[in-house]
Amino acid sequence: MTAIADLETPCVLIDLDRVEANLKKAQAFADAAGLKLRPHIKTHKLPRFAKRQLELGAVGITVQKLGEAEVMADAGIDDILLTFNIIGAAKLARLKALHQRVTIRVVADSAASVDGLAAAFTDPSHPLGVFIECDTGMGRCGVQSPEGALDLARRVLAAPGLKLAGLMTYPAAGKYRESAQWLADAKALFDREGIVLPEITTGGTPDIWHADEAGVATEYRPGTYIYMDRSQVAAGAASYDDCALTVLATVVSRPTENRIIIDAGSKTLTSDLLGLTGHGYVLGYPEARIVDLSEEHGTLDFSASASKPNIGDTIRIIPNHCCPVSNLFDVVNLVRGTELVETVPVAARGRVD
Amino acid sequence: MTAIADLETPCVLIDLDRVEANLKKAQAFADAAGLKLRPHIKTHKLPRFAKRQLELGAVGITVQKLGEAEVMADAGIDDILLTFNIIGAAKLARLKALHQRVTIRVVADSAASVDGLAAAFTDPSHPLGVFIECDTGMGRCGVQSPEGALDLARRVLAAPGLKLAGLMTYPAAGKYRESAQWLADAKALFDREGIVLPEITTGGTPDIWHADEAGVATEYRPGTYIYMDRSQVAAGAASYDDCALTVLATVVSRPTENRIIIDAGSKTLTSDLLGLTGHGYVLGYPEARIVDLSEEHGTLDFSASASKPNIGDTIRIIPNHCCPVSNLFDVVNLVRGTELVETVPVAARGRVD
Repeated sequence: MTAIADLETPCVLIDLDRVEANLKKAQAFADAAGLKLRPHIKTHKLPRFAKRQLELGAVGITVQKLGEAEVMADAGIDDILLTFNIIGAAKLARLKALHQRVTIRVVADSAASVDGLAAAFTDPSHPLGVFIECDTGMGRCGVQSPEGALDLARRVLAAPGLKLAGLMTYPAAGKYRESAQWLADAKALFDREGIVLPEITTGGTPDIWHADEAGVATEYRPGTYIYMDRSQVAAGAASYDDCALTVLATVVSRPTENRIIIDAGSKTLTSDLLGLTGHGYVLGYPEARIVDLSEEHGTLDFSASASKPNIGDTIRIIPNHCCPVSNLFDVVNLVRGTELVETVPVAARGRVD
Repeated sequence: MTAIADLETPCVLIDLDRVEANLKKAQAFADAAGLKLRPHIKTHKLPRFAKRQLELGAVGITVQKLGEAEVMADAGIDDILLTFNIIGAAKLARLKALHQRVTIRVVADSAASVDGLAAAFTDPSHPLGVFIECDTGMGRCGVQSPEGALDLARRVLAAPGLKLAGLMTYPAAGKYRESAQWLADAKALFDREGIVLPEITTGGTPDIWHADEAGVATEYRPGTYIYMDRSQVAAGAASYDDCALTVLATVVSRPTENRIIIDAGSKTLTSDLLGLTGHGYVLGYPEARIVDLSEEHGTLDFSASASKPNIGDTIRIIPNHCCPVSNLFDVVNLVRGTELVETVPVAARGRVD
């Protein structure tokens, strides 16, 4: 077998045992909370892990873009929630093609979005499921009030080729209680109006261990939980020992006693800070700080670290945010301990549209 | 012909007329300053533009990684400077393979780096050219003093399979005078020791219009100048009218009067801030601010903009940093005015090692 140490750097390592543990822990937690689990594949972008999530009990997957849905449908995955407004003729045509071959549902948060879907989907015998996207505190997409959700739901119900799938939200990290209250208020309003909400779906890894407090929600959509990362450790959702994705890098320069330059920069680790200071956590050197990234160089300050690597040594880094790291690599290396198991293409990488 | 408006979003548009103007302006400036031009292809990653740069008078190209060099060599480009320490057996073997088929030179900034090269390249009849990388203020790689450069140059000169190519630096933006002084001091020291420096190569687009003040430098390596971007406008090196790369995005949601959500997030624009506030400049809406990015969503604040786009409208964005945007797309769209000329693969995208 190939040892990790023999891989060319920079590259991505995925610890299979940690992946398995993370998937099982979240599935068990969701089961105990009586929630369906619908993992977001944006983190791993790998059909094999999507299938493993389904094997372990997930009811389907979540994707963010049509291109991701197409890759996963091609891989044989049948139940897909696309949590993005689909706007415009070209994208509606792609959505129709997917709807012909798999179970796919989407979200809408405006009359314009619903009207576009209603014009494209007109067959009452095979309607498209549409969730109303709700802004429960994130400040991104979504209707702004339960009344807004009700109005938009009526618009979906009035379209013969659409069916109301329920409510969908992505809560702000740390605001799960406010989000749960918003959804509860909306559910009460829909109940009063006698409108059935088949599902109420929420998500987010930062608050995944509070999913049991999600109130009226019936489904949870975590993404990052499969790999975890430095931002999730900072949020209290994981420990470094849970982190399954690391970047393997080589020390290429040590211009001063404490300045170490590695061959991994923003083209590898991304510039995502997510509120953190520094660009990742260096395994084995807890006092090292990744102080700067250019595209191909990472600049590390080892002033506070008694132990320092030498030129040619490799180090492993837990990135701030693992999801966009997956998107930067054509392949990732699946490992077990210090051995390479398999190098696999990141099938849904770069599917931006 | 296809109109830009018919392209699926998000996507990258490259304005061919602006590319041509940017290339010619920089070549003319270098010619007038008596400097060789050696463009860095990390910005465009396209063999066709590398070839155009050579046609217009560039002496060769610069790359940052072996993978980029391999793509460009495959495309028929013969004179390549790889401005990165090449460390380890696997990478040295790839460098040797390149050295057999094209003119390639590299940099070194440590005894370890030179010794690795010296062990791999042993043929005096076909020596590898090595530049001494100098840290003239950037605080990244590079020897820390002219005396350090001299010591390392002697190590190169002592290796039968290596030859001294000269000095290489990447100056800190805005610090071109300090960098020029450093190089002048080093040149004087080498002159006193009777050691010839065939080339002294510097670079950077932020200070490209000060390249005529580069003193003893003989060569200039700009990258971003081909496309320019918001950071270069902020640095005073370009105007928005010079910017050739834009991201075309669609408004997918308008949850409030002034909050506009587009289908371009960090997976399209990157999270690079480069000291700026906000994530890009919106053409036609100068008061709009891109206040937040998630992977697939951009959140824009139009409070200060009297004119606001509607759901389904497209907008064009000049990113903060164009180089990593090229790295996120499998293809880019070459345009002239509002017409698509050709969609081309980004041949050297994702070549991280």
